[in-house]
Amino acid sequence: MKTIVEPVSYEDAPSEVRVVYDDIMKTRGIDFVPNFWRTIAHDAALLRRTWETLKEIMAPGALDPMTKEMIAVAVSATNGCEYCIRSHTASARKLGMSDAMLGELMSVVGMFNETNRLAFGYQVEPDEVFFK
Amino acid sequence: MKTIVEPVSYEDAPSEVRVVYDDIMKTRGIDFVPNFWRTIAHDAALLRRTWETLKEIMAPGALDPMTKEMIAVAVSATNGCEYCIRSHTASARKLGMSDAMLGELMSVVGMFNETNRLAFGYQVEPDEVFFK
Amino acid sequence: MKTIVEPVSYEDAPSEVRVVYDDIMKTRGIDFVPNFWRTIAHDAALLRRTWETLKEIMAPGALDPMTKEMIAVAVSATNGCEYCIRSHTASARKLGMSDAMLGELMSVVGMFNETNRLAFGYQVEPDEVFFK
Amino acid sequence: MKTIVEPVSYEDAPSEVRVVYDDIMKTRGIDFVPNFWRTIAHDAALLRRTWETLKEIMAPGALDPMTKEMIAVAVSATNGCEYCIRSHTASARKLGMSDAMLGELMSVVGMFNETNRLAFGYQVEPDEVFFK
Amino acid sequence: MKTIVEPVSYEDAPSEVRVVYDDIMKTRGIDFVPNFWRTIAHDAALLRRTWETLKEIMAPGALDPMTKEMIAVAVSATNGCEYCIRSHTASARKLGMSDAMLGELMSVVGMFNETNRLAFGYQVEPDEVFFK
Amino acid sequence: MKTIVEPVSYEDAPSEVRVVYDDIMKTRGIDFVPNFWRTIAHDAALLRRTWETLKEIMAPGALDPMTKEMIAVAVSATNGCEYCIRSHTASARKLGMSDAMLGELMSVVGMFNETNRLAFGYQVEPDEVFFK
Repeated sequence: MKTIVEPVSYEDAPSEVRVVYDDIMKTRGIDFVPNFWRTIAHDAALLRRTWETLKEIMAPGALDPMTKEMIAVAVSATNGCEYCIRSHTASARKLGMSDAMLGELMSVVGMFNETNRLAFGYQVEPDEVFFK
Repeated sequence: MKTIVEPVSYEDAPSEVRVVYDDIMKTRGIDFVPNFWRTIAHDAALLRRTWETLKEIMAPGALDPMTKEMIAVAVSATNGCEYCIRSHTASARKLGMSDAMLGELMSVVGMFNETNRLAFGYQVEPDEVFFK
Repeated sequence: MKTIVEPVSYEDAPSEVRVVYDDIMKTRGIDFVPNFWRTIAHDAALLRRTWETLKEIMAPGALDPMTKEMIAVAVSATNGCEYCIRSHTASARKLGMSDAMLGELMSVVGMFNETNRLAFGYQVEPDEVFFK
Repeated sequence: MKTIVEPVSYEDAPSEVRVVYDDIMKTRGIDFVPNFWRTIAHDAALLRRTWETLKEIMAPGALDPMTKEMIAVAVSATNGCEYCIRSHTASARKLGMSDAMLGELMSVVGMFNETNRLAFGYQVEPDEVFFK
Repeated sequence: MKTIVEPVSYEDAPSEVRVVYDDIMKTRGIDFVPNFWRTIAHDAALLRRTWETLKEIMAPGALDPMTKEMIAVAVSATNGCEYCIRSHTASARKLGMSDAMLGELMSVVGMFNETNRLAFGYQVEPDEVFFK
Repeated sequence: MKTIVEPVSYEDAPSEVRVVYDDIMKTRGIDFVPNFWRTIAHDAALLRRTWETLKEIMAPGALDPMTKEMIAVAVSATNGCEYCIRSHTASARKLGMSDAMLGELMSVVGMFNETNRLAFGYQVEPDEVFFK
């Protein structure tokens, strides 16, 4: 077993899990359930909550879905989460992220992980103008 | 002294630093040099390199400057860098980020810091489709 | 060579290392020395210090060993350390952690990695009641 | 303004926010709304989702609430989130965490943040036994 | 109370704590006990273990103490730990770190926090030569 | 495809990329272009900026190159970046880092990742002496 718990196949899933699986495939327009969802399905409440929240958050709103997926890539690259980097990069591309956009996204993520440490390392004080 | 090194005032700055200060104020359309730049100015090469790189990265390209500043907020919130959160939030607002956009940005950042840990914690394997 | 230094086998270990290996196997009730210990054994002082400290910390005290192993999983999932997630999950299970407990542990770890970033991102001020 | 957005007072809160505020105070047995909730209330959907999820996760289950709050402290200390450390330590104490338990919790959190980096730094390979 | 537990003053310290306090002041050549040690002293075993380990690690060896303090600054700036950044920068300076060395240290820390994210973000594969 | 973008081979590289590749091989004294550079080469501006900055930062200065590579290892082990740990450990060894130095480096990195969390977890206040 490579994951910490056995992923739950569609066949073995209890009905409360199957309902979520169906919604994931329908919403995403895919014909399989990605490993992430099949793995957390081992705790049905965790699966339901995570999917409902994610679906709500990633819906079009003040920000468009592609921008949201790129922000997800930025978070995942900062944390070094392989699964997340691969899945959100794939999703962002599907939604229109070009190679040029990916290159700029990575540049921005790299840059501010650098300046974050300069601000930390020198203990830079916030300018007063930020508090007005 | 609160920062680790004394910030360099415009008056005391050597000419190679003053040139960067002038460019920062002109490019940003502000009449003061933020503490971040005045602090790293204590190493003139670090100041120059960081500013030149940042200016190049944040220029309009495949991504617009507001989106880039929001990605900077995402990185900084993930890392917990106060100075960076305050400065990039301020910049993003100046470029048009509304309160609704900020709320969605924070929702996305929070969400994927959560799912990153679920993917880590369960050691979820990337789906084969990600490698095609 | 996959690790950065060659793990030290029991056969090749100097006596000061072998003493620690013996104690690890006896204390843990296992008949092999896990890779973590065999790898850091390349620096005998690091091995001894780390094992002595870990043994002292993980002994039953105000908190029981299973709770301590679950806290170790929480730290390791937050940091994304594969070796550590696998080993501490295995240890916690051996000490009685059920699948239901694992599911709740992951839910809690995910949740607070999210709220940590909301608190960071909005720079929420501690309530006065926390300082009383 | 010290937080990035103005916290929403009970008086100024729209009814959908007030409902959550009331539930927080009732569930927690407190007569004020902590800054964390008043700050994220600026995005009513974020407030509702976060509170509903947290309430569900922190309810007694396979793990007791005190253990869950201690895991929250472990995550928050690993990430360095001041607000979160203060609030979860306070909650854990209210639920029965003694000073001795806090000391052991901190010891465990410190220890595994150390060993996580040894495992990273030496790129230790998971033992085969972890995959059975 | 600002720290999570009341720091233990020399006067109120039990003898096992006082012994460590005396050793800290003697080893460091200072006439006060820094807050870090007074805070963790609330758990006497944690204080003793941490001090003994730190003293052993920071002693001159294959690396000189100033280099070790600079590595401590690098770790602390990466994690954003204010107390640690301030104390290790002060220690490194005492041991001879010049302003020029500090500037280069920060440049290196910033740079590799950037490239770490580029390697994460693009999921760069290790070159085969690294495994020979 | 295992990386997120196809690494750019020397043969397929446009001239602006080839110039950087040549400089990397010449400066490093190697006859191949490591995957890191071939991967980010997909964005030529990112490649050029990153290499120029790295070359400037890693040149001998107030700190020697071996010390700089060890600091890079410290950052990478703290963040858990496999590629970076492998490449900077290899570079540091080439520049003279012995096994004994590596052992001490890892000990220091582990130790301060631990104390960083104790300082965070207890919210230790900086001593006044740090601000003088």
